[in-house]
Amino acid sequence: MATPKPRCYRGFRDTFAEDLLLKQELIDVVRQVYERYGFLPLETPAVEFTDVLGKFLPESDEPSGGVFSFRNPDLKKVLPENEADLWLTLRYDLSAPLARVVAQHAALHKPYRRYQLGTVWRHEKPGPGRFREFTQFDFDLVGSAAMAADAECCCVIADVFEALGYSPGEYLVLVNDRKVLLGVLETIGVADLDFTQEGGQALAVLRSVDKLDQLGLAGVRELLGAGRKDQTGDFTKGAGLSASQIEQLEKYLAIKAEQRSAVCDQLEQFVGASTVGQEGVTELREIDELLNLSGYGADQVLFDPTIVRGLGYYTGPVFEGVLTKEAAKNKKQQQFGSLFGGGRYDNLVARFTGQAVPATGASIGLDRLIEAMRASRRETSRRSTADVLVVVIESERMGDYFRLTREIRDAGINTELYLGKMRIGGQLKYADKLDIPLAVIAGGDEFAANTCQIKDLRLGRELAGQVESRAEWRKSHPAQQTVPRAELVSKLQELLKTD
Amino acid sequence: MATPKPRCYRGFRDTFAEDLLLKQELIDVVRQVYERYGFLPLETPAVEFTDVLGKFLPESDEPSGGVFSFRNPDLKKVLPENEADLWLTLRYDLSAPLARVVAQHAALHKPYRRYQLGTVWRHEKPGPGRFREFTQFDFDLVGSAAMAADAECCCVIADVFEALGYSPGEYLVLVNDRKVLLGVLETIGVADLDFTQEGGQALAVLRSVDKLDQLGLAGVRELLGAGRKDQTGDFTKGAGLSASQIEQLEKYLAIKAEQRSAVCDQLEQFVGASTVGQEGVTELREIDELLNLSGYGADQVLFDPTIVRGLGYYTGPVFEGVLTKEAAKNKKQQQFGSLFGGGRYDNLVARFTGQAVPATGASIGLDRLIEAMRASRRETSRRSTADVLVVVIESERMGDYFRLTREIRDAGINTELYLGKMRIGGQLKYADKLDIPLAVIAGGDEFAANTCQIKDLRLGRELAGQVESRAEWRKSHPAQQTVPRAELVSKLQELLKTD
Repeated sequence: MATPKPRCYRGFRDTFAEDLLLKQELIDVVRQVYERYGFLPLETPAVEFTDVLGKFLPESDEPSGGVFSFRNPDLKKVLPENEADLWLTLRYDLSAPLARVVAQHAALHKPYRRYQLGTVWRHEKPGPGRFREFTQFDFDLVGSAAMAADAECCCVIADVFEALGYSPGEYLVLVNDRKVLLGVLETIGVADLDFTQEGGQALAVLRSVDKLDQLGLAGVRELLGAGRKDQTGDFTKGAGLSASQIEQLEKYLAIKAEQRSAVCDQLEQFVGASTVGQEGVTELREIDELLNLSGYGADQVLFDPTIVRGLGYYTGPVFEGVLTKEAAKNKKQQQFGSLFGGGRYDNLVARFTGQAVPATGASIGLDRLIEAMRASRRETSRRSTADVLVVVIESERMGDYFRLTREIRDAGINTELYLGKMRIGGQLKYADKLDIPLAVIAGGDEFAANTCQIKDLRLGRELAGQVESRAEWRKSHPAQQTVPRAELVSKLQELLKTD
Repeated sequence: MATPKPRCYRGFRDTFAEDLLLKQELIDVVRQVYERYGFLPLETPAVEFTDVLGKFLPESDEPSGGVFSFRNPDLKKVLPENEADLWLTLRYDLSAPLARVVAQHAALHKPYRRYQLGTVWRHEKPGPGRFREFTQFDFDLVGSAAMAADAECCCVIADVFEALGYSPGEYLVLVNDRKVLLGVLETIGVADLDFTQEGGQALAVLRSVDKLDQLGLAGVRELLGAGRKDQTGDFTKGAGLSASQIEQLEKYLAIKAEQRSAVCDQLEQFVGASTVGQEGVTELREIDELLNLSGYGADQVLFDPTIVRGLGYYTGPVFEGVLTKEAAKNKKQQQFGSLFGGGRYDNLVARFTGQAVPATGASIGLDRLIEAMRASRRETSRRSTADVLVVVIESERMGDYFRLTREIRDAGINTELYLGKMRIGGQLKYADKLDIPLAVIAGGDEFAANTCQIKDLRLGRELAGQVESRAEWRKSHPAQQTVPRAELVSKLQELLKTD
């Protein structure tokens, strides 16, 4: 067999401790908030029948529909009765599988509050920070048509940001309503009022407005009209609105106010003649009232007409959760894109059963969150799991080192026993590289005298340049000290505590 | 579009809260032990180039090689220079990707201690309890040839079982050495001494012995000889050993002793003339000594000649971690099968680089562990995440319920606000079904009087049949009580604490 080249497939990557220890912390924080609201975990297969997942991606006009698909290897013969089973697809989100679960397991108690952490795959063009495999963490409330459910979604998103250490104003939950958008379309004279119609004008307008962050108003204006040629020369056909329609739509997009109720007032005026538009405003007012009563201010949840979401299946309120410039370490920094995205989708289960099951929820992209946490000031991740490295000076004494290591581990201290081939200097550099704070050193003399040396490796790293505090710190943290074996564990605990 | 049928692909399934809340607990326990030893997390792609993963599955003689593969959708044209990129495969384990990572990232510090939690996929015939998608949780120590590394692996496995609540004797880490096996083959006169040779006699013997648990000695005897016809009539070609060779091998398989050193003594006698066999025994003796020094007895780690593992790539010590009959709730129960599996594989990285990198580690199958936890006496899982259900009697007062719910959640109590359409009786049944212990009930009267009712839903469930303790329990847990609103949170906390 030829020697294979060690490589990853395009758009896929390995992730190491530095990112994963932070990711684990974030997952625990998010899960705790979801559970605070009584959401229950669910896991679904990575592989689903293609027809089960459906085509809802904005990229579904791409060659392979934006997903990874393969033929069902169990089907030796394709017959009319198993034709629907011919293709399998790696899931591209966690909503389509949830709709399948709800349709399939009729006995599921409702309202069904479920959360799901899972990998999803998209066959898109990879780019910097844009991967084909990523992790989503969703929560959804299935079986409730009440606006209280959507209001709770806003609360969950706000609570997650606060649990992550962000204050009101540093994050914002931005809310709009698809019914308001329908009202806007009706008001400006668009005949197509169905966002689920691939190729229709309503969906084209939606996807154009959804690119506002990315392209700015000028780009969106082109997409709303005849179309837009991008930098590479690729042309995207526009939604075909008239100049006066675009002008009106821009007025709608410019609606802004500091208070949620003031936004509602302006929206109400704009969609005045549209029944569905008024319904949308009423929904937003209900959400506003519930948020007011439970103490969520406009620096936490805001109504924003530019929020539309790109997916066709939303039917009511839509949400985004963003970090604002206030959260940035560097104020010149670009805004962080949207971290949470979601909304109400009352017809997704009906695809299977014909019966509408109301549902609402949102998804956080963990990879983007990690990036945002690093770019903002809240990077708290460790790089090592071990707090102590036991240095091996005389490998023929491995039994002694084994016993020593066990003593420390038994006290609940994460400890690595060095099992490579380097000498003591190399081992200490290794600990340094891995960010392990303490090294325990013992040779024949120490074992005979029943002592150990503890070396504190942190000074150089953490206080680099701060000469004064350096001296101060060294008083309580001597670089190296000899301790009786009986006191080793308590000394290590003390050093780790004062860290 | 036709209405899709909501269904899962064969061998794939949905998993719900009852299993997942337990799974999460297990993951946290296992991760804590892995981190206690200084292992670091790694994540690799689900999709790898087929040649990168290689063919190591015992099932690799199945039609599609036992894996799910698909053509690289990026390759418009297959040219000689990109031919190796033509096929992609869903990973079938976490070892092959680790070898790729180590070969690809040359700068990785070594010894590299990594753990990885991940889903793997196998295209096998599904059956009861046998799925095509499952979760593995691996730990591996790459870059150390020392037997101390293998001894640590045994310690990790033992520590995981103890952290899960099992005592010595209820679990066992079973250890053998591939070099001993080679010595046995040499001793009984088998010429082929290469376990990596697909179709070779050595590998055939290995896979036959690996089926001992499943088929019993009689079945293995057939597989070692001419071959075996199973119940469905399928014939498996045998390893082609002679009757006297089989007889000798059976003597080896019957080696048993209570102490590890006694097993070594017997093995030494058996493989006396084989250099590689003696090397294997020496390795086991080294492991034994280190385990003795750190206090792991024969009721924790045992040497067992029948342990061989089915994968060809192991080169030294091999491990299994099992629950014994002592762990069973019902003593008549079958043994639980192996939960941990692993061993030393010094040549896996060399597939890519030509340079051997010593490595050892093991993997725990989480789905099988969950099953075993349920079948043994340690089932501790919750079925709900919420501890309190806020019942909604008058939906026009949703604002009041929202505020009430927020108060409880702000105290750190997981709380569900009921958002469905049932009346109070239905809501209490819903709480009961979800195993939510407490319900908070308030209507116009209570809101006016600034009080709440707390209903304790636990009695019927937990003390069913125990009439005496029932009365006792009710003294401190009245079924329903009215409390002033200001005392609601502290009362709930008290009720949850005395649970």
